[in-house]
This record gives sequence, structure tokens and C-alpha cells, in this order.
Amino acid sequence: MDLKNNLRTSTEWEIIENTFDPDQLITTGSNFMIGNGYMGYRGTFEEWKAKEYVACIVTDTWDKAPGSRWSELCNVPNGLFTQLFVDGEMVSAFAGETTDYYRALDLRHGINQRSISWRSPGGKSIQLDVEKFASKANHHLLVMRYGFTALQNGEYRLITGIDGEMWSINGEHFRSYTSFEEDGMLGLSLHTSENSTHIVITEGITLSGKAPDTVGVLKENKRCLHELTFSLKEGEKVSFQKVVSITHSNEVDHPLALSKQEVISGLAQGYERLKEEHQKKWKDFWERSDIRIKGNVEAQVLARFNIYQAYIATPVHDNLPIGARGLSCQVYQGAAFWDQETFNLPMYCYTHPDIAKNLVTYRHETLAGAKRKAKRLGYYGAFYAWTSGKTGDELFPDYFFTDVLTGRKIRNHFNCWQIHISPDVVYGIWLYYEASLDWDFMRDHGAEVLFEVAQFLVSRVHFKKDKNRFELIRLLGPDEYHENVDNNAYTNYLTQFAMEKACWVFDTLKEQDPEKLVRIMHTVGIQDEARDHWNEIAQDIYLPKPDEHTKVMEQFDGYFQLEDIAPGELRKRLIDPGEYWGWPNGIAVNTQVLKQADVVQLLALLDGFSNEVLTANYEYYEPRTEHGSSLSPSVHALVACKAQHYEEAYRYFMESSTIDLYNASKKVMSGGSFLGGIHTAAAGGVWRILVEGFGGFKVTREGVAFSPALPKTWEGLSFTLMVKQCLLEISITKNNITVSSDPSNEKGITVTLKGKPAFLEPGKRVTA
Amino acid sequence: MDLKNNLRTSTEWEIIENTFDPDQLITTGSNFMIGNGYMGYRGTFEEWKAKEYVACIVTDTWDKAPGSRWSELCNVPNGLFTQLFVDGEMVSAFAGETTDYYRALDLRHGINQRSISWRSPGGKSIQLDVEKFASKANHHLLVMRYGFTALQNGEYRLITGIDGEMWSINGEHFRSYTSFEEDGMLGLSLHTSENSTHIVITEGITLSGKAPDTVGVLKENKRCLHELTFSLKEGEKVSFQKVVSITHSNEVDHPLALSKQEVISGLAQGYERLKEEHQKKWKDFWERSDIRIKGNVEAQVLARFNIYQAYIATPVHDNLPIGARGLSCQVYQGAAFWDQETFNLPMYCYTHPDIAKNLVTYRHETLAGAKRKAKRLGYYGAFYAWTSGKTGDELFPDYFFTDVLTGRKIRNHFNCWQIHISPDVVYGIWLYYEASLDWDFMRDHGAEVLFEVAQFLVSRVHFKKDKNRFELIRLLGPDEYHENVDNNAYTNYLTQFAMEKACWVFDTLKEQDPEKLVRIMHTVGIQDEARDHWNEIAQDIYLPKPDEHTKVMEQFDGYFQLEDIAPGELRKRLIDPGEYWGWPNGIAVNTQVLKQADVVQLLALLDGFSNEVLTANYEYYEPRTEHGSSLSPSVHALVACKAQHYEEAYRYFMESSTIDLYNASKKVMSGGSFLGGIHTAAAGGVWRILVEGFGGFKVTREGVAFSPALPKTWEGLSFTLMVKQCLLEISITKNNITVSSDPSNEKGITVTLKGKPAFLEPGKRVTA
Repeated sequence: MDLKNNLRTSTEWEIIENTFDPDQLITTGSNFMIGNGYMGYRGTFEEWKAKEYVACIVTDTWDKAPGSRWSELCNVPNGLFTQLFVDGEMVSAFAGETTDYYRALDLRHGINQRSISWRSPGGKSIQLDVEKFASKANHHLLVMRYGFTALQNGEYRLITGIDGEMWSINGEHFRSYTSFEEDGMLGLSLHTSENSTHIVITEGITLSGKAPDTVGVLKENKRCLHELTFSLKEGEKVSFQKVVSITHSNEVDHPLALSKQEVISGLAQGYERLKEEHQKKWKDFWERSDIRIKGNVEAQVLARFNIYQAYIATPVHDNLPIGARGLSCQVYQGAAFWDQETFNLPMYCYTHPDIAKNLVTYRHETLAGAKRKAKRLGYYGAFYAWTSGKTGDELFPDYFFTDVLTGRKIRNHFNCWQIHISPDVVYGIWLYYEASLDWDFMRDHGAEVLFEVAQFLVSRVHFKKDKNRFELIRLLGPDEYHENVDNNAYTNYLTQFAMEKACWVFDTLKEQDPEKLVRIMHTVGIQDEARDHWNEIAQDIYLPKPDEHTKVMEQFDGYFQLEDIAPGELRKRLIDPGEYWGWPNGIAVNTQVLKQADVVQLLALLDGFSNEVLTANYEYYEPRTEHGSSLSPSVHALVACKAQHYEEAYRYFMESSTIDLYNASKKVMSGGSFLGGIHTAAAGGVWRILVEGFGGFKVTREGVAFSPALPKTWEGLSFTLMVKQCLLEISITKNNITVSSDPSNEKGITVTLKGKPAFLEPGKRVTA
Repeated sequence: MDLKNNLRTSTEWEIIENTFDPDQLITTGSNFMIGNGYMGYRGTFEEWKAKEYVACIVTDTWDKAPGSRWSELCNVPNGLFTQLFVDGEMVSAFAGETTDYYRALDLRHGINQRSISWRSPGGKSIQLDVEKFASKANHHLLVMRYGFTALQNGEYRLITGIDGEMWSINGEHFRSYTSFEEDGMLGLSLHTSENSTHIVITEGITLSGKAPDTVGVLKENKRCLHELTFSLKEGEKVSFQKVVSITHSNEVDHPLALSKQEVISGLAQGYERLKEEHQKKWKDFWERSDIRIKGNVEAQVLARFNIYQAYIATPVHDNLPIGARGLSCQVYQGAAFWDQETFNLPMYCYTHPDIAKNLVTYRHETLAGAKRKAKRLGYYGAFYAWTSGKTGDELFPDYFFTDVLTGRKIRNHFNCWQIHISPDVVYGIWLYYEASLDWDFMRDHGAEVLFEVAQFLVSRVHFKKDKNRFELIRLLGPDEYHENVDNNAYTNYLTQFAMEKACWVFDTLKEQDPEKLVRIMHTVGIQDEARDHWNEIAQDIYLPKPDEHTKVMEQFDGYFQLEDIAPGELRKRLIDPGEYWGWPNGIAVNTQVLKQADVVQLLALLDGFSNEVLTANYEYYEPRTEHGSSLSPSVHALVACKAQHYEEAYRYFMESSTIDLYNASKKVMSGGSFLGGIHTAAAGGVWRILVEGFGGFKVTREGVAFSPALPKTWEGLSFTLMVKQCLLEISITKNNITVSSDPSNEKGITVTLKGKPAFLEPGKRVTA
């Protein structure tokens, strides 16, 4: 079935490109990428180089190039680099003639495929078939099978090896390149400039089919390559398997030895075996994570595409952050933002709690960095980094944007005023705890984070004695067009949330494990009265309430007094299309126009608001939102569902789920800067829309609840959830919802369907 | 003796212009102006019109022209307009030949004089002598004597009357012009657009000398004129006296009737009698206000020039504000800023307490406006207007500057974040009370202001519970290059000052006049505990303390972390010389470069800082100050005296006292906007430098103290002070200081000279 943007699907489990479009290199490289959370390998062609945006981004390799302000993940040499020459002419999508073009991404198995018939400008034809994957079974491995058939007699030259001439957004990270050759394998051993991280790429190949006439090794610049030549007759085939291992010293002690060993072992296992193990892992993943949509093929593919992208962006081998562009490129530094907790974590909490645990553990492991940040800015406790890499130290620079009209740099305050990141981290930990009931984690790690965040908030709030309330002054909410605001609704409510949870955990520990509490208090450096301060703030923090008449909540103090203008009208005031709309003097600053709507975001996260309030706020803020953030549409979809604006919800679902795949209007290059890559949070948001929005899922104190509302064209929606240690199958049709408790569950759970609670024993089902 | 800038003096009581410089019209018009606090009449020539910046600015005529954001004082029609034609050729500085040029301002008597010999292009010569003043005896009157002598036979035509074609910075204020003719007088009756203020200008003349051949009336455009022709023989003289009365309905009930009546009465009295009464008033003024400097003629003239300008800028007939440019033009809207209290009020407190009382009463009368402002911004109590006219409502617009690089308007926050204006008003009231001991004023008016300001500050402070202190967040101090700062040293200290004084007045009233206190509390709407809140803030407000090692106080939180660069270096970063250096993205914002130094300003106002602190802070901040404000040099001079940097003090005294008179580098026109006019605060600051700086005067709890330090070249400095109801004569020489108590004093006073206190009985003197 045809999709948009030059794509089709066959089994609803893959995307297939109809024709090659040389103008879409950046987009298709991202969309067709493979990865395993350790590395992301863009879906490019084997013969391509840096200028076609070939990239292999490896997590946990943060490094600052000499002279740069930016710490970012390394784009490592391309171990799959392969070029094929037919009578001296290179097989290329840009020359000769390609027929039977096929590029596909198999979402179910995480495999990128290419198959073409190609005729050289000189008239020689070949058939080329390539398949590759980033192994889910061994995260260091990239595996490829490359084969071709001569359609006429000819001389063929194949070079394959490692291409070390990579691109990097903010400078060259490698101060040394050493190539090596051992037992037929080729390798590059690199050291980064700032941190001297040792990175090793080793590759090896196994040939099959027609034997080569000559075999050699070619070294040029930063490339080391096998060179093979063949005289082939019509119909003769050549094929090779390739195993590439990428290791680095931030993860393993002896990356060089391991890298070689893994290639040897991988080649010994062989392509099919490696693929089988890889596919098994993917099968396990989808068993929990697939969302099945009946009646709408496009929506089905979009759901799977986004879940796929969210998953390959997530490091699962270690406690590391999900980058805002995943591992699709270096943009946003491969670092976590608040998106991780609010957009990506929910899916894992309810499908793969082990991955969710990695992510919340990452926040515990970066507590020291958050404490350093707080201290540096004159606070105490934990002020999490806006842009968080390995250590949790703030990676976001003071000066980010440049005023395009004057060339002057702009002091942005994402790193110092956007304090909601700390309560967001608490939100994430709470979400994980509530979903998993993993008290061990809460006790051993979560509690400390909650207490340190509470302490940070104590040091950040101001008390207005005359109003007998705490206030939060000089904030930047999720809506980044309005810096320097007071009592941002989102931030204040989330602060109350964080304080309440800190108190609850404190009280629970006191009751259940008082000795542990004493140890944590000692670590954090607090006394008993700290808990009273948290509670005082939870009680007395100012929360902008819905207006008595309109039911609208003010995004921040004075927001309603700002100029009320439509985003489209406001846009006309741009002098230069590249202008930043926000601080300090952008066109949106003194208007009600939002990059994303903080109140809508709040309503998407916290419960307890009436339908009237949901509707009023959605209707007020939606037309004032410019959606300058890729996070915005999914939140609008979620709240549109809650507010029963189903048509708008569906529109925003489509917008959010196609941000990358259809890429209609996105800028992927701007002012010479690469901005491409996968919007990982939007991908995570799609799961939320489907399950929490259309599925109407929420966690209650006793169990779970659903109030589904399927989009008009859909006939069914089904998915699996793991909540409070119960595995549940949910199946929604136009009129019914059925929840089945897996027979393996060890206990029952209260399931509330359309407002009616029922206790569901293992192996039973309930329908409403 | 020659002064700089084309000026000389003869008796040290006047400035005389050596030659006419057509490029200096704006400056000389201001410097030679006459006025009486009701009107300011620029020192222009009688034949000039709008394009030569003729202006007569009348206080209490605030009006907004249609389509303008700016409320400003009206520039009213010129009743002294007079042109003389010799054989058809107009006497003009721009044509023909002028010899024996003389333009002078008699500072002692407030009289502007002009005398020239002029030969027309056609070769006819005349001698012209003009003298004029704005009467101090009757503030509605402008009085002129205009005479000429024919040096050859010829035909002379004289037109004199009212020129209504005035200029106005922000649009035409008069929606109707009606001319009238009555009993030989000519008049213009006007109504303003916004407020329908009725303004009437009536003029009448009395001729003497050779009688005219013809007499008529000429009306053209907005002019109504007497037209007189004369056939004169060599040596024949013509002279006329002119009386102009300017009245308006904001001051008097029947401005038309009064205006006519005053002209009739003035003409009946005659020029000499009017001048005599006028001069008597000036004599009275100087008796108290003159500062005599021996050994330096230039300094002497500068002292008198500045005191003169400060005085004619000050409304004394009513409780009205002193404009930041006085009545020299419309710039800064004829409105009071904080300068009034901190730069102009001190001179009056210690020389003319009756005028000081007018000024502090003005602040009481505008309390309602200050309360409206507080309420509008979400506070309560009194938040005084940054730009304060008749009602005390905020005249400063939200958008003031424009970004010259982009053309975008800039949201400045002078009107909402520069809260120190309210404690500054308290400072002024306290200054007046401490100088005058006028308890009646404090009880009947001052107390209410102090309480309302205290309430405003209660509503403005934030309490940091974890630090157990009050903070002031998001401020703009006097240094306007740094908006949005916290705990600005100047503002926080002045807030403490205001709170302490409010408590003291509360306690004193409670003891002495409890019923009155109850009435005031009822008016303000407070209970007893309000006083405790004020005291709590006075006790616990955070005050940036001198650093333990360097003794430097931080201007605001984080100031020391800003880029430390010299103002001259910073200036090189300007892209356009017209750029604003401050908010939001000017070149000074993220640096330590100051427009004026708030800590230095603080040290100039409040006592109790050690010499070590004075010196350390002066030395730290002085090189970082750009002096972008005309207020800055006088404050630096004052604190340089305290810090015993006498040479720098003298340099800053010269800079401050010559800002207008020598005008070397000042911009008087910018981007087509008139910026000329007298810097009234700088003029007031000169008195402070002389008396408080070089004279080392300060008020103590028991009386007064002096620790003088004369500039090197000076032999003597003497002045009169009225402190705590004692009239004192102070005479300082190189080695001695003598203070004499006037025999008329009703009580003694403690005088501390060079640290040694002595009780001085009336009629006695003390020397040290």
C-alpha cells in the first residue's frame, strides 16, 4: 500500500522507498536507519561518504573538539564502507541507470535492505542486494551481507573496509588514527581529543560465490580497505558477509582486543546465525511493544515506525540517556533533555520496565553532576542539566542562538531558568515506580534523587509573606518563547508534585526502613525538618487556578496581558525567516503566541482536572500555539483526546507521527548547520497518543483505567501493558474494550473500564 | 575673565557670549534661558521662530498630542516675538553685519540681555538693546524692554506680538487657536487636545521715544502682531516695554480674564517697577543660596550658573515636580524622576525649606497616582511613577528605545522594575524632615507616604526561608545598563532605610499622637501588625556587604561574574554608534560596565560606611563606569571627596558643572530628536558637591558636621545653611572652617568640625 513521501508498505511492518530522490539524503538517511541503542547507523548506501551524511553515532563517546564549546557524541568511521566498480565505473545512484529500485526498512526485525538493478553509463548491468543490521544481540556489532550478480561479462573491482573520513558538526574529535591489519581483518584505532577515549573499529569479511582474481589491501587517507578484483561472466555471483565491531574505552577495558575478538567470533558464527539472534531480540521487543491498529494501514505503519525509532535511540546496555535526536546524528549532543522523562519513558514504564529502570537509574547516576550545577548557580540539592550527557554536568552553553539580524550572540537561559527539568526527573521516577512498584529502586536510588530535587526546590522558591505562598520567580517553562516569567503553571504544579512525592517517600521509608532513611538523610545532608519544609512548599506553593468564569489557567503571571495575536499574523513581523522568536527581543516575546503550550503540557501529565478545564484550556491555548517544538503536536493530541476533540486529536497524531517520515516542511539544514535526524521525543509521544490518548489508559491508585475513543476510520486498537507487575492485553474495538490478564500474572488488578471498576484475576478478561 | 566655550564673565555673576555661533543654537538657547519655575523661556533672540528653537515651556500643562504616546508640557506661543526691519531688511544675526555683539545672562537677577550694533546688507546701521526676564514676583509675567537707535536716517518697521507657530517634540497640542484684540492688547486663547486645558497668552506694549508713523495690527497664520512704522533720523530712538501674561486653566479659574488683567496692571506699573520687584526676589534667593568661591573665577561662575539653572527649573508657586530638563524644553516630559529627591531636593532642604516642602508635598499629592500604579502592576501601597507629572500616574511608556540595528521597538522596564523610586521618595521626605524638623508635615503628609511605600515594599519583597532573609528580585537599579537583576545594593539598602523610617514615624506617632496614627492607619488600610512587617523587613532584608578582603560590595547578585572589560574597549563592539548599551541585548548587558555606579550612588546617599569601604568601592567601580548618565559625575565627585580622592573629585566637579555650559561633546540632536536642554539634576548635584563634597557637610543626629577639603586652587568657600531651624554661615579657607550661628536663631545647635563637636549658641561662631 502506498504511503506518502515516496513510500509504500507491503506487510505493514516495513517502509519501502519507491524511487531514489537525491534531494532527500538527510531525511532518508534518518528514516531508514538501523541501530541498537549503542550505535545508530544511518540508512545510507554502502558506497557513500561524509557528503551523503553517512554516519555511525556511538553513545557514551562525548567529546569536545578542540576550540568548540560543544560536547557531542562521536561519529565514528564507517566500517560498512563498500564500493563496487564495473569496468572501472562505480555503482552509484547518481550515475548510470537504476531499475527495480528497492530500499526498505524492516521494522519488525531492524534490518535495512537494498536491492537494485543497475546499468553503468558504459552499458554493463549488475544486480545488487544488500542487507544490514546493528545487532540487538551484541550491541558492538554491525553486520552486512552484500552480494551482486554480473548481468554481463566484465571486470569487477570491489573495495570494502573502513572509511575514517567522517563528518562532525562541531569539529574533529580524533587526535590520532592508527590503522591495523590482523588475520585478514582491518581496523582503525582512534583517540579522542578531549577525553582520550579509545575507540576501535574492526571489520572482517567472508567471501562466497566466485573467487577473486586478486586480493589486496588499500590504504588511502583515513581509509583502509580490502581490494578485490573479479572477472565475471554473465550470471556469476559474488557475495560477502561483513562483521564490524565498534568498542570504546568508556564502556570496556580493552576495546582493541575485544573489537578484534568479536569480529573473529562473529565471522565464525556467520551472517545467518547473527541475524537469527538479532531477530529474536526484536521479536521479544515487539511482543510487548507492538500496537496493532485495524482499519488504517498508514496509521499502523506510523505507529510501528515511531516505536522502532524510539527504541533504537534508547541505550539498553547501560544506564545512559536517550538523545533528543537519538543516535541519528550529533544534533543536540546525543544528550537527554526533559523529553526523556515526559515523552520517552512512559512507553518503557508500561512495556519494558527493565529499560525504564535503566533510564531512571541514569538520573541517579548523574546526581553528582546535578548537584554541581546547583552549587555553581548558588543553589543546593540537584538541579538537573538541561542537556545531560554521561556525567550529568550541564552541556548547554550560555550562548546558544545568534541574533541573525545583528550577528550578536544571545545569552539564552535554558541552562539556568528552565528549572522544571528537576521536577520532571522526579515525575519520571514516580512514573516508573507507580508502573513497576519497584520499591527496591525507590529505596536505593529514587529516594535520594527525590530528596535532592526537593532540596534544590527549597533553595529556589521564594516565599511571599504577604500572600502566604511560595512562588517560583524567573522561570522558563517548556514554552521557550517566554523566558524570565514568574509562576509558570507547568513548573509550579510539577514542583508541588515533586514535593509531595518526596514527602511520601520520606514517610514511607520512615515507617518501613527507618535505618535506610537515616543513611539517605546523612548522604543528602538533611535533618528531619527538611521533610516539613518540603511539605510546607507542597501545601503553600502558588498554583495558578482555572479562572472562575473562563476556566482557563494563566500560563504565567501576566500572560493574559500580553498582546493576543494569531501565530500566522505574528509570523509576518519576521524581518528574516531565520530569526529566533524568543528571548530577548524576538517577535513572540511580548505576545501570547507560544512555542508549545505549558498548560496543555501540564494537563497531559497530571490528572485531576475536570473536563470543563481540559476543554477550556485546550481551546484557549491551541490557536495561540505555534508548535515551534516537535514536542508540541503529541501533547496537543493527548489533551485533545482528554478534551474529547477527537478530530483534532487525530490531526495532531498524524502531525506528530509523520514529523520524520513525511518530513514535508521540516528544515534539515539551516544556515549551514545540520538539523536533520529523528525527533526521538515525538516518536515516544506517538506511543502515548495511541495508548493514553486513543486508548484512554491511565494508572489509578488501585490499578488501571481505560476510557478509549478510537479515531473514526479505525476498527481496532490493541496493545500490551505491564502495569503493577501485571501483564495485560488490551483490545479495543469501535464499541468495546477487553482487558485480559495474562495467566502468568501472580496477582489480580483492579481494571476500570469506562468508569466501572472490576477486579481482574490472572487469566481472566473483562469487557465493557 | 574668559571662560571656555566662547564665554566670559565680568563680575562672576554673569555669563557673556563673545561671538554669535549659529551652530550652537540649541545649547545657547538653554544656557541663556530665563525662567521662574512656572515657565522657562529659552535665551533666544526676539526675531527668531520655531526653527531656532524658541520655546516657552509652561509647567502643569501636561497633554498628549493626538496619536502620541507621550504626555508632555506645552510649548506655548511666544509673546515676546519681535522683528525689526530697516528699509525692508530684517535685523538678523544671520544676515548683515553684527558688531559689538553682547548676549549675557545676569545670574544674580535672572535677566537676559542682548545688545548689538548691526549693519544691514544695504548698509544701514542700528544699535539694538534688549533686556527681558520671567518675573519672580508674578510668575505669569514675561517682561521685556526693547529699544533701538537709528544710526542713519531710514524707514523702520517693527512688528511685535505673539508667534503661535511653536514646535513640539511629540505633536501639536492645541486643537484651537483664537486670537483676540482688546484695549490695545493682543492675545491668543488656546485649548489643548487631550485635556482641553485653556491657555491664554496676552501681551501689551508701551512705546516711548519717537512716535510711530503708522500703527496697525497684523494677523498671519498663528501670529497676531502690532505693526509700527517709523521714519527715523540718525540718532533717533524708539523703545517699548512689553508685558506678556501666560495663564492656564489648570492653575486658575479664569485664565482669560486674569491674563488680560495682569497685562494691564503690569503695563501700569511699568518696566522698572516690575524689574525691581523681580530683582528683590532674586536677591532673597541668593542671600540663602549663593556659594562663594575664592581663588577660582571659573568655579565661581559654574557654581552660580548651576544653582541658577536648578532654581529656575523649580516650580515654587505650587506643589509641582522639577522636570529632568527643567522647563528648558519638552524632553523627558517636564516630569520628575528620582533625580528630584536625590539631586535637587538637598539644596532646598538646607537653603529654602519652603521650596523643599513644596517638593515633598508634591509627592504626597501624587500618592493616589502611585497607588494606582502599584495596583495596576499587582502590588499595593505606593509605587511612585518613574516619570511623574501632575497626577503621579506613570508617564513612562512600555516601549521607549528602539533597537537601531533592527528597527524593532524595545520593551524597557524603567516603569516597572526600577522600584527604588519609592524608597527614594522616602529618602527625600526624610531629608526634608531631618533638615527642617517639620513634624507637622511629617504627621499630616509624610507619614502616609512612608506607610504606603512601606506597604508597597511589603508587597514587592520575597522571603527566602532557607536563608532567612528578604530579597528583592528582578530590579533595575539606577544603573540602567543592567535590567532584571536581583538584590541591587542600592535598592536593597534604600529599602531598609525606608522601612526603618516608616517604623520610626509609626512609633513616634503612637507615642505623640495616637489618634492621628489611627486615622492614618485607617486611610492606608493597615493594622498594628503592619509595623511589625516593616520592621521584620528592615531587620532581615539582604544587604550585600563589603567583601571581607577587597571591601567591595557587589552591585547585584552575580555582578562579579560578568565579563570585566573597560568601557572604552567595550565601546568598540558597537555596530552603530546610536545603539542602546542596555536591555535586552546591548553591549554592556553581560559585562561589568555601568551606566552609573549604583554602589557609588549608595555611598553618596547613606552614611555609615568606613573610609576603607568608600575607597575600595570608589576605586573598583569608577573605571567600570561609562557615565552614560548626566547624574553620574556629580555622584562620583561626592564619593571621591568622601574617599579622599580630591583630584578626581575636582575633575568630576568640573565635568558635572560644565555639562550644559561647555557642552563640549553632548549630543543635542539625535536621529532627528531634540535632546537639548538643561540637565537639571546635574545642576542640583553641583550644590551637593560644593557643600557636601568640598564642604564636607552632613547632618548628624544632634546637629551638623563638617570635614572640608578645598580643591587645590581655591582659597575660600563660603555658604549659608538652614539646618534644624538654625541659620548658619559657613566659611572655609585652606586651613580653617568657621561656622557662625545667626543671631536671629532661637536655639543653639551642635556643630562638629573635623570630628570635634561643639554646641553653638545663636550669634556665636566656632572655628577649627
